[in-house]
Amino acid sequence: MHRRSLGAAVAACLLSVTFASPAAEAPPKKGRTMTEVLAASQPSDWRRLDPDDTVYLDFSAGRVVIELAPAYAPAHVANIRTLLKQHYFDGLAILRVHDNYVVQWGDPESGDKDKARPFGEARRSVPGEFSQAIAKQPFVRLPDGDVYAPEVGWSGGFPVARDPKAGQTWLAHCYGMVGVGRDNAADSGNGSELYVVLGHAPRHLDRNVTLVGRVVQGMELLAALPRGTGPLGFYEKAEQRVPLTRVRLGSDVPEDQRSSLELLRTDTETFTALVETRRNRHDEWYLSQAGKVEVCNVALPVRQAGKKR
Amino acid sequence: MHRRSLGAAVAACLLSVTFASPAAEAPPKKGRTMTEVLAASQPSDWRRLDPDDTVYLDFSAGRVVIELAPAYAPAHVANIRTLLKQHYFDGLAILRVHDNYVVQWGDPESGDKDKARPFGEARRSVPGEFSQAIAKQPFVRLPDGDVYAPEVGWSGGFPVARDPKAGQTWLAHCYGMVGVGRDNAADSGNGSELYVVLGHAPRHLDRNVTLVGRVVQGMELLAALPRGTGPLGFYEKAEQRVPLTRVRLGSDVPEDQRSSLELLRTDTETFTALVETRRNRHDEWYLSQAGKVEVCNVALPVRQAGKKR
Repeated sequence: MHRRSLGAAVAACLLSVTFASPAAEAPPKKGRTMTEVLAASQPSDWRRLDPDDTVYLDFSAGRVVIELAPAYAPAHVANIRTLLKQHYFDGLAILRVHDNYVVQWGDPESGDKDKARPFGEARRSVPGEFSQAIAKQPFVRLPDGDVYAPEVGWSGGFPVARDPKAGQTWLAHCYGMVGVGRDNAADSGNGSELYVVLGHAPRHLDRNVTLVGRVVQGMELLAALPRGTGPLGFYEKAEQRVPLTRVRLGSDVPEDQRSSLELLRTDTETFTALVETRRNRHDEWYLSQAGKVEVCNVALPVRQAGKKR
Repeated sequence: MHRRSLGAAVAACLLSVTFASPAAEAPPKKGRTMTEVLAASQPSDWRRLDPDDTVYLDFSAGRVVIELAPAYAPAHVANIRTLLKQHYFDGLAILRVHDNYVVQWGDPESGDKDKARPFGEARRSVPGEFSQAIAKQPFVRLPDGDVYAPEVGWSGGFPVARDPKAGQTWLAHCYGMVGVGRDNAADSGNGSELYVVLGHAPRHLDRNVTLVGRVVQGMELLAALPRGTGPLGFYEKAEQRVPLTRVRLGSDVPEDQRSSLELLRTDTETFTALVETRRNRHDEWYLSQAGKVEVCNVALPVRQAGKKR
């Protein structure tokens, strides 16, 4: 909504996961901007992606990088790793792009016993990991409340919700989160069909589906795919599907072909300060500040490793 | 997140603004589904778009239909109508697609006095219409609360927020809402540069920008545009911009070229029942129900006029 004629002020309002240069000449303000908070971050505020928790999904438009969340979905992540090691997804396709909802990939022939891609060592049925008991998970609570859950915040770099009375916690369906397609039965998912949230957070899916991670780079490539015109956004013709070239676990990719990404740790003072810049925006353009923020309206910073910003 | 192998159950879970056929053979359930609620709707539950409040934006990918909200932004809507009558936008372009945020169009030459498109009878400066006094606006309150505002709901077909203590109400930045780009000054917008929300609701923009309407059809065309790679998602090269073929006020388009759309009235029992299907989903696929819903997570139904569904 910034007009095109803006220059420096525009750069300071950047909301995406890449960052503009800090305006070093800017005078001190009453509150810091996101750009200022990130410019002041220390190397220890950042963490490298663990190659065993990283998925590289390469397709014609480029590379999508996913961070898996084994702490929240250990059985599904284990099964996905097994599928990845077998190169299960190579040559399969994006089957569905449902506007303001999800993009989803899998085996177009999954319904045909003779043509379906074999599962090899992977399980065909994994019990749903929809939530788990609150224990010693890290948790940085967002003080602003939530429509769907008693508590929300972040845990190990992922947006989470909690119900202390029920003693349960779960990953939240925010933009870019990756989940496991399933049929009606709770144990009918297995990780061979995955979806990514690409619209307003469909939080009604929380605790109905197993979330296994989130896209940390390349979301804009998935989000720009043509929407499918069939029910639920499925592509109606085989030629509309978007082939997956190569999908690999990070640790199975030669080091020189890995993306070197760092993510801001969510258990740092820098992250808390960053959330504060999302609650109250002190960039010049803003005339009034919200004072609050939704958990899914905080983009989690990612940068190239080795770069100061 | 439904798997591809699903058939009828999939169709019943459709979330978009088009609707699958009702499952007439389904047995009665404890709660109704969206499909069932819409199938039972009466003609009086629906309203036709007023041609004077309709904008047709035609570009290479197809047509986007916008409903203007003169009740909330009378001065801006008047200025936009003036621009439209002068065919101001024809041949201008989509300049910016910022992933998980906004798509924005306007005059690529707006910064060049000699090349900029003339404004003709339109004003160059319109005071911001960021909120207005609560008066007799229709208001259907959502009972589930909101992170950003004391009250939220719908008014005349638009998502709105209210602060009864401050006596103010405003349109809410939900997916598909259309707003007016501005520079830093509150009166620097005029409607010559418009943006559409295409990601998670950026509610921090509420009361910072004038919202003037919402996309009621064709959102999937805007959402699938390539993301810009410049700061704020601006396209870096002129040839990346997406030209607008023709942008017209509905009443200036010959009747046989108008889209015949009907929108579900938000002040009806049918709409309240529809919201209930978003709070508690009784489609077979769901294992647990949220019990609540965010105002921006309710898609407002649109259908072709004259069709039962």
